[in-house]
This record gives sequence, C-alpha cells and structure tokens, in this order.
Amino acid sequence: MLLVLDLLGLFVFATSGALMAIRKDFDAVGILLLAELTATGGGVIRDLIIGVIPPVAFANVGYLVVPVIAAVVTFFAHPAFERLTTPVLIFDAAGLGLFCVTGTLSALDHGLGLLQSAALGVTTGVGGGLLRDIVAREIPALVRPDSELYAVPAVAGALMVAAAEPLHQSQSTIAVSAAVSVFVFRLIALRRGWHAPRAWHRRV
Amino acid sequence: MLLVLDLLGLFVFATSGALMAIRKDFDAVGILLLAELTATGGGVIRDLIIGVIPPVAFANVGYLVVPVIAAVVTFFAHPAFERLTTPVLIFDAAGLGLFCVTGTLSALDHGLGLLQSAALGVTTGVGGGLLRDIVAREIPALVRPDSELYAVPAVAGALMVAAAEPLHQSQSTIAVSAAVSVFVFRLIALRRGWHAPRAWHRRV
Amino acid sequence: MLLVLDLLGLFVFATSGALMAIRKDFDAVGILLLAELTATGGGVIRDLIIGVIPPVAFANVGYLVVPVIAAVVTFFAHPAFERLTTPVLIFDAAGLGLFCVTGTLSALDHGLGLLQSAALGVTTGVGGGLLRDIVAREIPALVRPDSELYAVPAVAGALMVAAAEPLHQSQSTIAVSAAVSVFVFRLIALRRGWHAPRAWHRRV
Repeated sequence: MLLVLDLLGLFVFATSGALMAIRKDFDAVGILLLAELTATGGGVIRDLIIGVIPPVAFANVGYLVVPVIAAVVTFFAHPAFERLTTPVLIFDAAGLGLFCVTGTLSALDHGLGLLQSAALGVTTGVGGGLLRDIVAREIPALVRPDSELYAVPAVAGALMVAAAEPLHQSQSTIAVSAAVSVFVFRLIALRRGWHAPRAWHRRV
Repeated sequence: MLLVLDLLGLFVFATSGALMAIRKDFDAVGILLLAELTATGGGVIRDLIIGVIPPVAFANVGYLVVPVIAAVVTFFAHPAFERLTTPVLIFDAAGLGLFCVTGTLSALDHGLGLLQSAALGVTTGVGGGLLRDIVAREIPALVRPDSELYAVPAVAGALMVAAAEPLHQSQSTIAVSAAVSVFVFRLIALRRGWHAPRAWHRRV
Repeated sequence: MLLVLDLLGLFVFATSGALMAIRKDFDAVGILLLAELTATGGGVIRDLIIGVIPPVAFANVGYLVVPVIAAVVTFFAHPAFERLTTPVLIFDAAGLGLFCVTGTLSALDHGLGLLQSAALGVTTGVGGGLLRDIVAREIPALVRPDSELYAVPAVAGALMVAAAEPLHQSQSTIAVSAAVSVFVFRLIALRRGWHAPRAWHRRV
C-alpha cells in the first residue's frame, strides 16, 4: 500500500519534471533526465545524508523505472497533461505530503534529531523540484513570491511527525494524519492563493 | 593501461570545462573549478551513491592533479584548443565511452542491480558535463535538441555492459567492446548530425 | 571557543545567503533556503566525501538553527545589513578562514591525502556560496573576474595546513596561523582590489 503510494508520488513528480523539460524544448534525453531528477533527487540527497547506501532509489528498481514510464507517457501525451492541470496539482500535493512524511520517518529511524529529521523530510519533498528548476534554468518555484505555499505545508507536516516522535504514539496514525494535513493545507493554499511573505521591506 | 586511459579521459573532460569557463569569461579560479567539476563530478556522484568513500577522485591524487594540469594548459593554450575542435571531440567521445563503461562496472561490483548500474554508468559519463553547464549557466548540452546524440550512446554502452553481466563472459572483452561501441556511435552521431527527438507535439 | 567561531561563521554565511535571496525578491522560504544552503552546503559536501555520516550540520542541532536565526534577523533587518557592507565582509573573511582550515583538518583526520584535504578545505569555505549563486541564478561570485580574490586566500590557507601536517607541529598553532592568514589575505585583496587573472588571451 505504502509502496503503491510512493510509486504514485514518483510518477507525479516525474511527470512534472518531464512537462518542464517539454516546456523548455529539451530533447528526449532532457525529458528523461528531468523526470528522474525530479522524482528521485530529494530522496537521494536524504539517503546520502542519513547513510542509506545505496539510496532507496537505487536499491529498488521500481524507483528508476517509474520515472522512465512517466517520461515516455508524457513524451507522447503531454498536451493532455497540460489540460489536466488541476488533477496534476492534486496528485502533486499528495506526493508532497507522502514524501515529506516518509522522509522525516526515515531520518528519525536512522537516529537523527527531531529538527534535523524534519529538515530532511522537507528536503525529500521539495528537493527534486528544486533540482528540476536548477537544470531547467528557472527561478525555483519553491522560492517565487507568486507561487502558492509549497514548502510551508511540507515544513508543517514534517514538524508534526517529528514532534509526535517523543510521544511514542502509533507511527502509522501520525504518518497518515501528517500526510493528509500537508495535502489539505497545500490544496487550500492553492485555492485561496496563499503566498509566503516577502522580506519586511520598510522596517528598520 | 586502464589508468592511463582514465587520466586521459579526465584530461579531455577537464579541458572542456576549462574552455567553457574561458568562453564565459570566468577568471583563473573559474577555469580551475570548471576543469575539476567537469572531470571528476560524474564519478564523485557515482561513488557517493555506491558507497566508495572517499570517492576515487579523492583517493588517488592523480585524479585531482590531472584537471589542474589541463586547466593550466588551457589557460595559456586555449586558442590552439579552439582550433582543434575535431580532435577534442574525438577524445571526448573516447572519454565518454570509457567513463560510462567503468562507471557501470564499478556499480555492478558494489552489488547494484543491472539497470541501476547502467544508470550510474551514464551518470559517470555525462554528470560532469551537466555540472559544468549548470555552473556556467548554459542550457545543458546534454538536453539541447540541436546537440548531437551524447547520452544515447552512453546509455547504449552502459546497457551493453549491464546486459552482459549475467552471461559471466570475460569482463574485459565486454568492457572494451562497449567502450568502442560508445566511441564509434558518438562519432557517427556527430558526423551524421543525429539528434534525439523532441516531444511528440501533435499527438493526442 | 572553536564552536563559537564556527557558529559565528555559519551566521555570517547564512546572512549572505539571506541577503542574496532578498535581492532576488525570493519569498520567506527562499530566504531560509539560501541561508541554510550557503551556511551548511560546503561542509555537507565535504562530510559526504570524507564519510562523516550524518554530516556535522545534521548531527549538531546548532548548525541548522543558527542559519534559521540569521534568516529571521535578515528578513526584518536587511536594510541595516546592507548599510553594514564592510562589517559583513570582515566577518565573511573570518568565516572563510575558519571554514577552510577546519575543513582541511577534518579531511586530514579522516585519512585523506594532503592535496585532497586542501581541496576539501577550499570546498568547505567556498561551496556554500557557490550553491547560493546557483540557486539564485547568478554568475558565481567565485568565478567573476571583477570580484576580489576569494578562493585564492582559501587555497593558500588550506595548503598551509596540509603542508604543515607532515611536520607534526602543534595543529592548533598551525590552524590559527592559517586562518588568520586567510583572513588578512582576503582583507588586503578587498582593499587593494586584487583580482584573479583571466585566461592568457593573446598567447599561441
């Protein structure tokens, strides 16, 4: 069940990478590269930091193959995906919730501190998209004042998971609640157009 | 013999980094940085993922020194290198063949799966050039629809090595055949002007 | 004492990341991201390469929290920081000296060779700033011919530490001398406007 959700998250993230590559007129190699990097990049960085060698993305062959499938599908079907903006955003919000929760849990399991684990959970959720935007030479969506809250729900969810850890509650209950919270928070931010603030310009 | 080829590959990759730095009017520090990053970047990423700590580039001092030499030579002799486009492309094709084959073998030796090893072989071959283009703020040559096939020969060669692994043939025979295939495939792609396709725009 | 200096270095580097984010009109998430990346990026890369898992930045919670504080302070007080260019540059020079020395020592302690350790010391000092400029889509300050020597003092200091290693002198004496040398060298370069040379254009 979790694996299915994980692979679904990979598929959606890979699709967002492939769509970006097509928008930038990259060739088939670029489409595949951005699909892989967006889907697996955040998790690979987390695994290198917590010492999971080889990273999960290189241990389980499904993690490499799903982005390839997403890239091939997007290669042919991208006009359909572009019409499906809302479903793609919904799946992406689900992937974000899932990745930041599993990333935090994985860091906790490897003995990292609460705040550090939350930071790595956020890295898992947003790292791939950051790498995608760097390779595509775009202002990272993560930091644009005109993009709806993306990292903030991930931070909230990761902190929830980390804060619940010392309570010794059932990990799965907490994981599900946190992932659902991130998902709902992100969707509300999208619908209401919530943005992170710019720097406090006129103070001092 | 293999070490000599490896250091030659490093030299050529480092030169391509140094030439890019000069084209972008970077200073001597930038020339050295891009030489090192282009030559050793792909292998360092591979080694971190398969758990070779410290990475080969930091274990054998030759791997750090050869790019320094390439940077110094290019610093003074770059107009000559620019006239030598064809030889440089030929050596670069040789380096690509060599790096993607040794990268794949190294991942297989560390117990990674066939597809994952092939992916890391490709990473070894193309990773440095990708880092070079990111630091130089260029559209990565790897993904430009107007650049001749580069990753595709690397993928083919890496898959050859991985596919031959379960056959328990002589590794060196396979390695040489695969490296030569990549080299020849890349040179034919250059001469015939073969490109990877763009996304399938009018389908759906 | 060393920890205090280290955290001060982190604070200054984080501030430079946060100021860059504000200059590029990133949102609060971007300010925090660039603060963390600039402060901890170089050290994390070094630790992954020498095998310190988890990296120091994820082992000691202060390393994550100090950049958060720097980001929050800069978020509100950035106009004051911008008027304080000279003090910020002085602290940054101190951070550079400190980071390249501690980075070199840390690599030596993990058994790396002299030159490799020096290279990782430089990486520790300049890596975070390079990542900052990549995410901010700026020409890296590190490689611009119009920026005053930055990597060169770091290289000099790291080589000093590495060269002194086989002499079995007191490590702390050498460390302090090298860090002070980097600091003074950088400040002189700033004041005299020393630049690294461009490529030797008219030779050959």
